[in-house]
Amino acid sequence: MNTIPPIEKVLVANRGEIAIRLCRGVQEEGKRAVAIYESPDAESRHLRIADEAVWIGPGPRKDYLDIDRIIWAARKSGAQAVHPGYGFLAENPQFAAACEEAGLIFIGPSAATIQDLGDKTISRRLAEEAGLPTIPGSGILPPGGDGKRAAVEFGAKYGYPVMLKAVAGGGGRGIRKVDSEKELLSQIEIAKNEAISAFGDGRLYLEKGIVNPRHIEVQILGDQHGNVIHMGGRNCSIQRRHQKLVEIAPSLLDPALEEKICQSAIQYAKHVGYVNAGTVEFLVDSDDSFYFLEINTRLQVEHTVTEVVTGIDIVRRMIRVAEGKKLDVTQDEVFCRGFAIEMRINAEDPKQDFAPESGKHVAVYNSPGGPGIRLDGMAYQGYTIPTEYDSLLVKLTVYGFRWEEAVSRLSRALKNYRIVGPKTTIPFYRKLVLEPEFASGSFDTGYLERHPELYDYSDQEAQEAKVAKLLSAIHYHGKNIFAE
Amino acid sequence: MNTIPPIEKVLVANRGEIAIRLCRGVQEEGKRAVAIYESPDAESRHLRIADEAVWIGPGPRKDYLDIDRIIWAARKSGAQAVHPGYGFLAENPQFAAACEEAGLIFIGPSAATIQDLGDKTISRRLAEEAGLPTIPGSGILPPGGDGKRAAVEFGAKYGYPVMLKAVAGGGGRGIRKVDSEKELLSQIEIAKNEAISAFGDGRLYLEKGIVNPRHIEVQILGDQHGNVIHMGGRNCSIQRRHQKLVEIAPSLLDPALEEKICQSAIQYAKHVGYVNAGTVEFLVDSDDSFYFLEINTRLQVEHTVTEVVTGIDIVRRMIRVAEGKKLDVTQDEVFCRGFAIEMRINAEDPKQDFAPESGKHVAVYNSPGGPGIRLDGMAYQGYTIPTEYDSLLVKLTVYGFRWEEAVSRLSRALKNYRIVGPKTTIPFYRKLVLEPEFASGSFDTGYLERHPELYDYSDQEAQEAKVAKLLSAIHYHGKNIFAE
Repeated sequence: MNTIPPIEKVLVANRGEIAIRLCRGVQEEGKRAVAIYESPDAESRHLRIADEAVWIGPGPRKDYLDIDRIIWAARKSGAQAVHPGYGFLAENPQFAAACEEAGLIFIGPSAATIQDLGDKTISRRLAEEAGLPTIPGSGILPPGGDGKRAAVEFGAKYGYPVMLKAVAGGGGRGIRKVDSEKELLSQIEIAKNEAISAFGDGRLYLEKGIVNPRHIEVQILGDQHGNVIHMGGRNCSIQRRHQKLVEIAPSLLDPALEEKICQSAIQYAKHVGYVNAGTVEFLVDSDDSFYFLEINTRLQVEHTVTEVVTGIDIVRRMIRVAEGKKLDVTQDEVFCRGFAIEMRINAEDPKQDFAPESGKHVAVYNSPGGPGIRLDGMAYQGYTIPTEYDSLLVKLTVYGFRWEEAVSRLSRALKNYRIVGPKTTIPFYRKLVLEPEFASGSFDTGYLERHPELYDYSDQEAQEAKVAKLLSAIHYHGKNIFAE
Repeated sequence: MNTIPPIEKVLVANRGEIAIRLCRGVQEEGKRAVAIYESPDAESRHLRIADEAVWIGPGPRKDYLDIDRIIWAARKSGAQAVHPGYGFLAENPQFAAACEEAGLIFIGPSAATIQDLGDKTISRRLAEEAGLPTIPGSGILPPGGDGKRAAVEFGAKYGYPVMLKAVAGGGGRGIRKVDSEKELLSQIEIAKNEAISAFGDGRLYLEKGIVNPRHIEVQILGDQHGNVIHMGGRNCSIQRRHQKLVEIAPSLLDPALEEKICQSAIQYAKHVGYVNAGTVEFLVDSDDSFYFLEINTRLQVEHTVTEVVTGIDIVRRMIRVAEGKKLDVTQDEVFCRGFAIEMRINAEDPKQDFAPESGKHVAVYNSPGGPGIRLDGMAYQGYTIPTEYDSLLVKLTVYGFRWEEAVSRLSRALKNYRIVGPKTTIPFYRKLVLEPEFASGSFDTGYLERHPELYDYSDQEAQEAKVAKLLSAIHYHGKNIFAE
């Protein structure tokens, strides 16, 4: 362990906002950041911020997922380490193993850890061994009729709803809520086929459904010397179809309950000998009982809120830990001060079921600044959003010493945030932040379903874009050439 | 006190970055912000961020200094309160009194406090009464020959250098270091005339000169109910001709010494019954003895570093305290975590003695983002810097959990900061941040004089601007029309 040579160059095996975030961490650690890109990303801001960039292919997406090409790019650039970010290959044990084989430091847990903890049934068994409460589950359903029978028995025993889950799923994907035996029987085959095409693994299991729980997760960080700390909780209950939209740190739970959950996360991490950054996720029921849900063996999108309330940079410590250094922070030094809220500014139209607005040109880009504002973004004036990738433009993270201060600051920041061109989630969030249940800080995963009125907002930027389009038509053609 | 009606609208009696900062605080407190502007500021960003804007005259500068016009603008807009910011009328007791007379809440201490503490001899006497160590001083020099004789006696008693100061000076203005009796005799008349023209008050006094002290100041905040807290120290030792360029929180002193200085500031604030935000300034000698220097009865430029390390918003609390609310933070809750460094990004050419670059057009503006970056700025792509005002474009404040993390983050942020058009202090700071004495965090007010090599930097942006100018000439005229 002590023979690891210092890393001079890190290949950032990702794109978009997280590639930018990683470049910043790498550069602050005094190392060079190497970006990779597929052709549609040739204008991406992550290439401007990196110290070098390697073209890995025409894409789209397949080259970012191509282990051999990325290993090649690392070798070509002379990088000694690879940071996978989130998504793409971040939780692919083959990628971590390929890095290890190629003599590259993979900035994350070992391939074996990723493999084991990525299997929801193994990670659940480990949680039980570590003494964590888990949601009653069925175990992997056998194929065919036996599986259906086992499922029906499970439903009869625990009642509906039940959650039908893909073993290889995670991060909100491969999950469906089933409300009756009839629905269960009809969904099993569909879920299996979807899991095969999404994850290459059709195995399924069932869990007792918990209605509108709070989604709480704990950031953990371990080194190669047996030290592991937690960095407090996050509340990720504001979700749309199991996808997080808004994330908060700390958890907004009673502090004693949050502390118990954080201790459970530490127990888990110690039991599995976890090294590097990870997130242990829990569901918290309305009676404050909590259950282990899963562990994500990577940096999360929402790590920013934890960095803001603890003041501790996670990405930089991921790099140091991967170099074999000891964690420089003890548990006593970790203290959540104030509140942080992250909103994902996506190029999507919330009124059209969050349809992506990719392909659009960002004609106006004015971001907020001043106290308590953190921006992790890739948008800029003149940017054309590629159609090939996800629609995340910027993560807006705000801080406030009191919860109410964070909320009112968020409202101010959204008011002053102007993106004209693509429709974005900003006007939707402007309404969300003023909604009393949200503003009071008490909500659960059923929040968005309970508040359909949030979708009835006025989109000033869309009107502005329309007027600009008409003006340009009149300017060039002397009349409005756009049919309504 | 309890009869103060809630404020709905605040007139921001300033311009530029601080007007923007104040608008943000006002809006986050749920109130409307009213901006004022002179004609040369018609394109200023503070007008875009405010909720309303009132034109107060053609300027330049004189209308921002015109008490009657500003009171008129407040009345016209229906504001109930006025925030003066820093500079202009912020420390003018007549302005605070005029607000009080007009029934407007002045967001700051009372006119009487501003009057007394603005007089350096009174504020010094109050410090002595409160038991603070002060630098040996002469008292106000009588006019004419008596004054010169008293000055010579003072120099003989304490030795040279001595500091010759204007009673009405402050914030680094109206101070000169004198190294010999001969120089003292020749400077008295010049200093008096300068003080008359700058402050309308020609009175002078002497202080024993402390060679290359550290400049340490303490942020204080008091309410109308007798509560007063300090928010830790700041190190403002990196100065050029008594003007601060770089500011740091906390003080980088031994924590026990910093605590003693902070307690002295509290003693002072309690002795004078200080209400609202203020800053008590100290000089710290090489043997760690410290002396009261002055108190600034307003928000300081560098308040951002204190907000970053304490997590507490000063501007919002200034507004609440002015409304008669109790401070919501106790001294126990104030805790400096990590380190913050602020650099003033000015449109100036450090190589030409920091000559202002105003009048120039900002052709490229790319600011850094991500973890630990705060921007308080007024620059944007397309902005033409007015020639009529100061050259401060943006305050860049970075945070790090460890001092080394703050320094390396600053280096990364400066590397990614691109302003093309005016020359700025950015390339100079890029070199400063790598200089070992700075990077080690041990420096005093003699720092810049000791490091003339810092001015020998390469200015990439200036070269870029030159190439762009040539390209445009060739594009339009087919040749370079600019004589070298």
